[in-house]
Amino acid sequence: MKIAVDVMGTDYGPAEIIKGVLEAVDEYGCEVVLVGDQNIIREALVREHQENNPKVSIHHASQVIEMKEHPGISIRKKRDASIVVATQLLHAKECDALVSSGSTGAAVAAALFGLGRIKGIERPAIATVIPSITGATVLLDSGAKVDTKPEQLVQSAIMGSIYAELQLGIDNPRVGLLNIGEEETKGNEQTLATYPLLKQAKHINFIGNVEGRDINKGTVDVVVCDGFTGNVVLKTMEGLGLAIVDIFKATILSSGLLAKLGALLMKPALEKMKQKMDASEYGGALLLGVRAPFIICHGSSKAKAIKNAVRVAMELTEKDVVGRIRDVILYEESGESDE
Amino acid sequence: MKIAVDVMGTDYGPAEIIKGVLEAVDEYGCEVVLVGDQNIIREALVREHQENNPKVSIHHASQVIEMKEHPGISIRKKRDASIVVATQLLHAKECDALVSSGSTGAAVAAALFGLGRIKGIERPAIATVIPSITGATVLLDSGAKVDTKPEQLVQSAIMGSIYAELQLGIDNPRVGLLNIGEEETKGNEQTLATYPLLKQAKHINFIGNVEGRDINKGTVDVVVCDGFTGNVVLKTMEGLGLAIVDIFKATILSSGLLAKLGALLMKPALEKMKQKMDASEYGGALLLGVRAPFIICHGSSKAKAIKNAVRVAMELTEKDVVGRIRDVILYEESGESDE
Repeated sequence: MKIAVDVMGTDYGPAEIIKGVLEAVDEYGCEVVLVGDQNIIREALVREHQENNPKVSIHHASQVIEMKEHPGISIRKKRDASIVVATQLLHAKECDALVSSGSTGAAVAAALFGLGRIKGIERPAIATVIPSITGATVLLDSGAKVDTKPEQLVQSAIMGSIYAELQLGIDNPRVGLLNIGEEETKGNEQTLATYPLLKQAKHINFIGNVEGRDINKGTVDVVVCDGFTGNVVLKTMEGLGLAIVDIFKATILSSGLLAKLGALLMKPALEKMKQKMDASEYGGALLLGVRAPFIICHGSSKAKAIKNAVRVAMELTEKDVVGRIRDVILYEESGESDE
Repeated sequence: MKIAVDVMGTDYGPAEIIKGVLEAVDEYGCEVVLVGDQNIIREALVREHQENNPKVSIHHASQVIEMKEHPGISIRKKRDASIVVATQLLHAKECDALVSSGSTGAAVAAALFGLGRIKGIERPAIATVIPSITGATVLLDSGAKVDTKPEQLVQSAIMGSIYAELQLGIDNPRVGLLNIGEEETKGNEQTLATYPLLKQAKHINFIGNVEGRDINKGTVDVVVCDGFTGNVVLKTMEGLGLAIVDIFKATILSSGLLAKLGALLMKPALEKMKQKMDASEYGGALLLGVRAPFIICHGSSKAKAIKNAVRVAMELTEKDVVGRIRDVILYEESGESDE
């Protein structure tokens, strides 16, 4: 098993990404190919005393796509950008899966352009795993495509369901449509048109509309929405989480000695809780609907998130999530059932 | 000052609503008219020993609109429903403002049908005050209208800005468009079309796109979005907040004695924090764009939230937020400036 990792264009720099990759190699025993500026990569490997690790190879790419660049234009102009080159390796089957951590837009564009879509999938979707009270919920699309047609949301539902089943081990995952009320008659034009299509769709266990408050509740396994809504939901959660931590710290600081002592005593428990709710434990988001396993990490990912992303890339490959999506979409389209 | 309160159709029943209203009368000295089943109301007043309070009157309404009923149909069929009757009192100027706490959809429909829109406002919007790290942020629309045109979002921006200025005392409030990236070129069809209109709009301090993570950060005062997105955002925050509390409790329960002691010592500080983040402190949401002050409380509001809603209704009336919106929209439409 060989995983390509684009190490360029991230907030914390290539060294942080490489650190996470090396931890994954050490722990999971996979081979990796690091894609990016060979001098920077070599330097980082030397610093970690891993320049002779037979499981780690370097594939040079002379260009980088920065966060602010226009995805579609930059991937066409910068043909030697690390994400473009890494995608070519995946397309040429020189590796089994890809982990990217730079610009999400550029990664999606590179995947569409360099790998192509699975037959029958009109638009790929980014699936993100969100911690819930009882375990985890898959939210998709979290930003691959902002304006989505009802048929594309059904395709997302199928892909998300397969992912939840194969990767998270959830049997017959409950699929919900993110909406503003539970009743079938509630919603905007898009959700009203999507509901009956989801109801008819084979291969998914559609439980109806769900609301924002259900995402973390553990009562739904796959939450389907367009990429605009999904992106806003994820970033709202991120912002609220940070605000709560900030307000918690300020409250303790402005409280008396007893509260401060209390906080100290609770520290190990709070750390455990933080870990449970830490998105980086789940190893990035998946671009579902393209022809090979493609993981997209947050631009601000640290080593731990990258290590987990490599693990997820391996699991996706082993479980052949891409092949399963291809098969199911084919059956769904042909009107046949494989059950 | 006289405030009408629809006391029917809520989760906790009329007695809980009436309790909050009586606290407001006691604390703020306003007059109130309680609208709903007169027997139920009288009974509740007797229980609170307030049946002879000269500031409290009863206006009988024989019907109730339940949460599950279709808003548009029910307000036309049930002409003696408490929310319909209360809106009539407001329209006839028998009171200055209205506080509702039943079905949000029915309240919006009753307001549109019974009060009408301010001239120039195509669609009213529900404005909700959300706690932030530094104070509070106004989010609108949080559910009055799910499919919105760009021009309607500009009207929401103007109304939200006036509300933040007059009610929350924020000078020259920063207005942001909720989007999936900061750049002007990011977004879905709706936000891309809205951005240039907001940039041109007079009377608002438009600071550009904001993301979900900015809502609680204190870097924007008014966040503008369509009613679908706003509703999903609010309920996502609600759900995440509850999940964090749940996970926190479970973590403490499964931890050792020291952590439990720590939690005990921190309890007063945590209570203070809970209060700071408690939405009910802000007294419900406002339906902006209709011809009189109209407050919409969550169906699960308790006495404290109702008390605060009555206070907000009084402030809205005193500061003539409705009159100010009418004037500004008129100027904005005529292309003139009042500055």
